[in-house]
Amino acid sequence: MKEQFYSYIKDLQNQITKALEKVDGKASFREDLWNRTEGGGGQSRIIENGEVIEKGGVNISAVHGPLPESMQAYFKVGNVDFFACGLSLVIHPKNPMAPTVHGNWRYFEMYNENSECIDQWFGGGLDLTPYYLFEEDAKHFHLQCKKACDAHDSHFYTEFKDKCDGYFHNSHRGEARGVGGLFFDYLKADKKYSIEDRYDFTTEVGNAFLEAYIPILEKRKSMSYTPAQRTWQEIRRGRYVEFNLVHDKGTLFGLKTNGRIESILMSLPPTVQWSYDHQPDSDSDESKLLEVLKNPKSWV
Amino acid sequence: MKEQFYSYIKDLQNQITKALEKVDGKASFREDLWNRTEGGGGQSRIIENGEVIEKGGVNISAVHGPLPESMQAYFKVGNVDFFACGLSLVIHPKNPMAPTVHGNWRYFEMYNENSECIDQWFGGGLDLTPYYLFEEDAKHFHLQCKKACDAHDSHFYTEFKDKCDGYFHNSHRGEARGVGGLFFDYLKADKKYSIEDRYDFTTEVGNAFLEAYIPILEKRKSMSYTPAQRTWQEIRRGRYVEFNLVHDKGTLFGLKTNGRIESILMSLPPTVQWSYDHQPDSDSDESKLLEVLKNPKSWV
Repeated sequence: MKEQFYSYIKDLQNQITKALEKVDGKASFREDLWNRTEGGGGQSRIIENGEVIEKGGVNISAVHGPLPESMQAYFKVGNVDFFACGLSLVIHPKNPMAPTVHGNWRYFEMYNENSECIDQWFGGGLDLTPYYLFEEDAKHFHLQCKKACDAHDSHFYTEFKDKCDGYFHNSHRGEARGVGGLFFDYLKADKKYSIEDRYDFTTEVGNAFLEAYIPILEKRKSMSYTPAQRTWQEIRRGRYVEFNLVHDKGTLFGLKTNGRIESILMSLPPTVQWSYDHQPDSDSDESKLLEVLKNPKSWV
Repeated sequence: MKEQFYSYIKDLQNQITKALEKVDGKASFREDLWNRTEGGGGQSRIIENGEVIEKGGVNISAVHGPLPESMQAYFKVGNVDFFACGLSLVIHPKNPMAPTVHGNWRYFEMYNENSECIDQWFGGGLDLTPYYLFEEDAKHFHLQCKKACDAHDSHFYTEFKDKCDGYFHNSHRGEARGVGGLFFDYLKADKKYSIEDRYDFTTEVGNAFLEAYIPILEKRKSMSYTPAQRTWQEIRRGRYVEFNLVHDKGTLFGLKTNGRIESILMSLPPTVQWSYDHQPDSDSDESKLLEVLKNPKSWV
């Protein structure tokens, strides 16, 4: 299974970077290879200062070795070995009318002292963070998420949509990071689903990414905008930073366990502003976004 | 003691905001008053888009009531009442040659069920975060810190300078936030010092702030700089954000206990950049700063 999923994310990385380069038309991804001292490594692909994409990363990694102590405590296991691989992406478009997107699909295994696999699961999801709300974009994105879910279980979409709203939440601001999408974790083999079923579902969601995001990016990438709208985008990007550095478990875990800093922090936006107590005018486009972030809604 | 210290920080807030407005010459502080539902409140004073200061806050607060649960666990006490007051300031100058400065002086009391004070202490400090290293500035700042310490105990400067280096450390980057200063906490009455002695020391350090920082700001505020130097300042400001959101206990504590968000996050810089794996040229002014941040040194 680990070879199968790793081969899948390698292929997906190629597909996604190719499609994004095509939309951008100017910049291309550069690749950074890195090794992890304790075992494994990754291939980060970064794009910066494009025509459409101001900053983005589509990274894969596969790491293994003794489970770090902090993770032993987290998973409530002893001194075991592990393997983990996944693809993580964040795309920050230049145009404030185009939303930021995040996606992640990952697989985890743990072994006993005889190197037998004692646990294995999939996790992942994708979510959208607009700066200006186009309801049709949120609907399109969620519809693609729902289609991928419905092909496997009619309960998945609602369950993982709600998990996404719950997770990507800036509790200190009382607002969502964006309009959500899907978030799932610890998808293990159970009475209903084999681990192959979990693989099929996770890769179905991974495959849905391009259809979920690219049409939105194409539609918004050349819209005109004002300097004030750009400022609003940068202020909202500040909230993205706040979520990732204060609340995101993956980021904090990476920072505190000697992960590869640059690959983890590629998620942070290129230019950001913090302005004291910024409040948009009532009834403005900006306040309409906030309204939806404060009260997550059903899109499909 | 609490009235005495609160009256001191009120006066210090006036002194500091007046002196900073004089250096700026254009912008003035605006005041925001806020109340805490559970008891107390604060007066935040914010300055933005000045001639010299791009963003800054000099805030005082005095809060009281039942000790929040997370603090009960932190202080290893039961359900007691508390009082806390303090002044917090962060100044982000526009000119990349001028350093950011942070200062904080605070006093804490806890009470038993008969409203008798069962514990009391002072804490605080000040520290400097340059974007370009002028050794004479770091020396001047530390000399003022040392003078304030030496008036009370010949061991204080070394002890609190080291604490500052240890605390303001971006462990995930392996570098200090800046060139340090002083950091002290839990200064209680003991065999050697009464609580009045602790008050005298804390206020001596508070009084040293203007002499430590204003001459540096005056010297650097009108220096010429290039767009590339401004970019470097914004990238380094990103490290400031990383420290405050990932490591700073006060910030995290405030965010997770329903503190006043805008007053807490006034510390975040106005404009910030994150660039993938940014590395300054070797032997450049930028790399000289990094060298000192990676290896904190003695300045006096």
